[in-house]
Amino acid sequence: MTDAPETEETPVAEEDRSVDEDYALDNRAVAQVLEAVAEGDKARLTALFEPMHAADIADLLEQVEPDERRQLVLLAGSLIDGEVLSEINEDIREEVIETLTSEQLADAMRELESDDVVDIIEDLDEDRQEAVLDALDMVDRIAVEQALSYPEYSAGRLMQREVVIAPEHWTVGDTIDHLRGQDDLPEQFYHVILVDPRHRPVSYVTLGRIMSSPRTTPLASITEESFRKFEVDEYEGDVAYAFNQYHLISAPVTDADGRLVGVITIDDAMAVLDEEHEEDVFRLAGVGDESLSNSTFEIVRRRFPWLGVNLLTAILASVVISLFEDVLSAVVALAVLMPIVASMGGNAGTQSMTVAVRALATRDLTGSNAWRVVRREAMAGLLNGCLFAVVMAFVGSIWFGEPLIGVVIAVAMVVNLLVAGLSGVLVPLTLERFGIDPALASGTFVTTVTDVVGFFAFLGLASLVLL
Amino acid sequence: MTDAPETEETPVAEEDRSVDEDYALDNRAVAQVLEAVAEGDKARLTALFEPMHAADIADLLEQVEPDERRQLVLLAGSLIDGEVLSEINEDIREEVIETLTSEQLADAMRELESDDVVDIIEDLDEDRQEAVLDALDMVDRIAVEQALSYPEYSAGRLMQREVVIAPEHWTVGDTIDHLRGQDDLPEQFYHVILVDPRHRPVSYVTLGRIMSSPRTTPLASITEESFRKFEVDEYEGDVAYAFNQYHLISAPVTDADGRLVGVITIDDAMAVLDEEHEEDVFRLAGVGDESLSNSTFEIVRRRFPWLGVNLLTAILASVVISLFEDVLSAVVALAVLMPIVASMGGNAGTQSMTVAVRALATRDLTGSNAWRVVRREAMAGLLNGCLFAVVMAFVGSIWFGEPLIGVVIAVAMVVNLLVAGLSGVLVPLTLERFGIDPALASGTFVTTVTDVVGFFAFLGLASLVLL
Repeated sequence: MTDAPETEETPVAEEDRSVDEDYALDNRAVAQVLEAVAEGDKARLTALFEPMHAADIADLLEQVEPDERRQLVLLAGSLIDGEVLSEINEDIREEVIETLTSEQLADAMRELESDDVVDIIEDLDEDRQEAVLDALDMVDRIAVEQALSYPEYSAGRLMQREVVIAPEHWTVGDTIDHLRGQDDLPEQFYHVILVDPRHRPVSYVTLGRIMSSPRTTPLASITEESFRKFEVDEYEGDVAYAFNQYHLISAPVTDADGRLVGVITIDDAMAVLDEEHEEDVFRLAGVGDESLSNSTFEIVRRRFPWLGVNLLTAILASVVISLFEDVLSAVVALAVLMPIVASMGGNAGTQSMTVAVRALATRDLTGSNAWRVVRREAMAGLLNGCLFAVVMAFVGSIWFGEPLIGVVIAVAMVVNLLVAGLSGVLVPLTLERFGIDPALASGTFVTTVTDVVGFFAFLGLASLVLL
Repeated sequence: MTDAPETEETPVAEEDRSVDEDYALDNRAVAQVLEAVAEGDKARLTALFEPMHAADIADLLEQVEPDERRQLVLLAGSLIDGEVLSEINEDIREEVIETLTSEQLADAMRELESDDVVDIIEDLDEDRQEAVLDALDMVDRIAVEQALSYPEYSAGRLMQREVVIAPEHWTVGDTIDHLRGQDDLPEQFYHVILVDPRHRPVSYVTLGRIMSSPRTTPLASITEESFRKFEVDEYEGDVAYAFNQYHLISAPVTDADGRLVGVITIDDAMAVLDEEHEEDVFRLAGVGDESLSNSTFEIVRRRFPWLGVNLLTAILASVVISLFEDVLSAVVALAVLMPIVASMGGNAGTQSMTVAVRALATRDLTGSNAWRVVRREAMAGLLNGCLFAVVMAFVGSIWFGEPLIGVVIAVAMVVNLLVAGLSGVLVPLTLERFGIDPALASGTFVTTVTDVVGFFAFLGLASLVLL
């Protein structure tokens, strides 16, 4: 919106510039919008929204309080268009849709491409789905219903049905003439897909190549090597991986018979990658699917199970400690020092695990280098273990004036960091082998192992040496 | 490569299909390549590489052992082309480049666009940089040297200098005629950028719109609203954010005088987002910049400092414990239970922190909703604290037959989970305010707080109640 026309209200024009400079909302923009809402000033709200990108309006809706949001949507009405709806986080989208009138919703939906409608509709409950479907033209409705018949998270859900195709034998001139005759081309397209007589995609040509070639050039002579196609039921994560790995901009999608049914573009793939990133980061930290706009009760409900699992593993570690009550009563220094061994093991394990989980996600850790990585992590754990063992031998001996305590903590440190390095790789690899997302469960397993091994090694050795 | 021509060697053709099916390397592909290398069979290696995408060849180079890699590069020679080099992880790229002859390197560089050459060259040491620059044509060399004069991580480093422009007053017909006359258009381009007489970009037109409009249509009448431009010295992270937020495909870059100097395309932005994401995941886990191809010593060296910081914070927690040696000697049950309080606090804090760090990275957590999020996290911590307090009151009382122990752990749990929720948001917010990457340091601060508070609350209360 760099060159958005200036409006008469100075604050809006200034707002515009500051939105543009930061590529994000600033506090002032939010405050001004809320002011307009409080005053019920639709004209001002319209002026404030005018220079804003749909994505920024969506962010604004996500950031305000739930009742401010309702007021805002009520006042904004048709300013919340299809683009804004498709940018909004799904957690609050339903809430926004419920506040809109059916007419506003219908208008909003009509301007969207089929993939965006599907993306919005799939998260709604059935009544709302029906309402949105009713708002669509018959052609769009059939397209959307067809898309919804594909499994969730499949290429079929991700694709748009609007495609630009040409028969294999066409020339550049044929193609340009044909396109000039079309009046509902997709909003964004980057390739003309070549199809055979049975409507199967065989290759594609970039628009750049078409435009820079003489009219008589056969399309078949300027096709791109990068061509890849996907089947409707392929997992969206695999599609996104391929877009990222092979730098695709768009790719055709085929049905089981190989016939062209749609096209996936890079913005769809980027959205999937973004979601997968967020999921990985959250799962590694034991956070489920949540967002900043969730209420307190929702996040309590979503985080409770993970904390519950952690409680069980923490109790397991305590049971291990309780096996050594004798030596703990005799030498209280052990109670002081034992968390250090567990903490260092937990951290080293988390380091190895994070690298392994990430490498599995980017498919850099495979059967062919797994053993090399396991060996490397074990060696690294052992080496760091030895380094910190020396440090702790001194600290332990000097702090408690008892060299044997230093020896015990040093040995436990080496053992636990070795185990941390090993389990940091082996746990995610094993989970992946059994088809469990390693991001989801690795953390709990790895820290349980390092806690149990850490306490057992430290207190067990202490029992042998100090009692 | 779906439609790669079949070769005579059956295994290769099969390989091809399996690479395509999995969108990644499989073990067999790697094993076959290593076999060919062991036999010094260049013909077979060529046949094996033929159907593979440069990105997959790069992955293969990353996955094999260092000496296998050297053998492979020596045999492959010019098969390691510019595209493969630009796909390779920078940690091993230098190693691969050193194995290539200067002639092979020169050939590889010559086929790349200026942004890819810059991306490769900026990580090399000076001697190597000189060698690569010498391999380039004068025009390319000047372009690359110019790009290297922009700060690291700036839009100037990211952009390619090859641009497709048109004066504002041109028509669709003018543009197509002009493009047909060009013989070195960029490999990928999606927009024609309109420039004013002083070579400042004012808008752009998608190729799709140009192709589907009559020849007489003025370009100025079919420009895109999505137009955004960047300055050469803007931070690449801001550029990538804008591409993602506003669904950009390409965007012009201007110098300080607003003149067009290059264009950034979505693949560059995706690469930046990917790097930033990896950095965040790694930093949250206390892992520096590392990759699977790093040697054992390299990862020991990179992880040691983080473990060192953790050791200091663990010792701090131990000092807190040592304040309560009396009560620990008197009631050994406390030593058994205390890690539970710290562990639950650490986990709850990590949950809040991860959500906050992620929201800061995606710019969803801003000044306008910070207080709401802080309140929400505090409330959620308090509620989960109360829930787990009830559980632990029972467990503690029954396990050790002493209701007071149950009371102590319950109260400590509530306190620590409240503190965990608060510090989980406040620490990242504070770091961000001081310009420190919250992903980098939040984890250490938050777990230090929850450890110290957890031990202090639990043992302190126990001293008051049980002694």
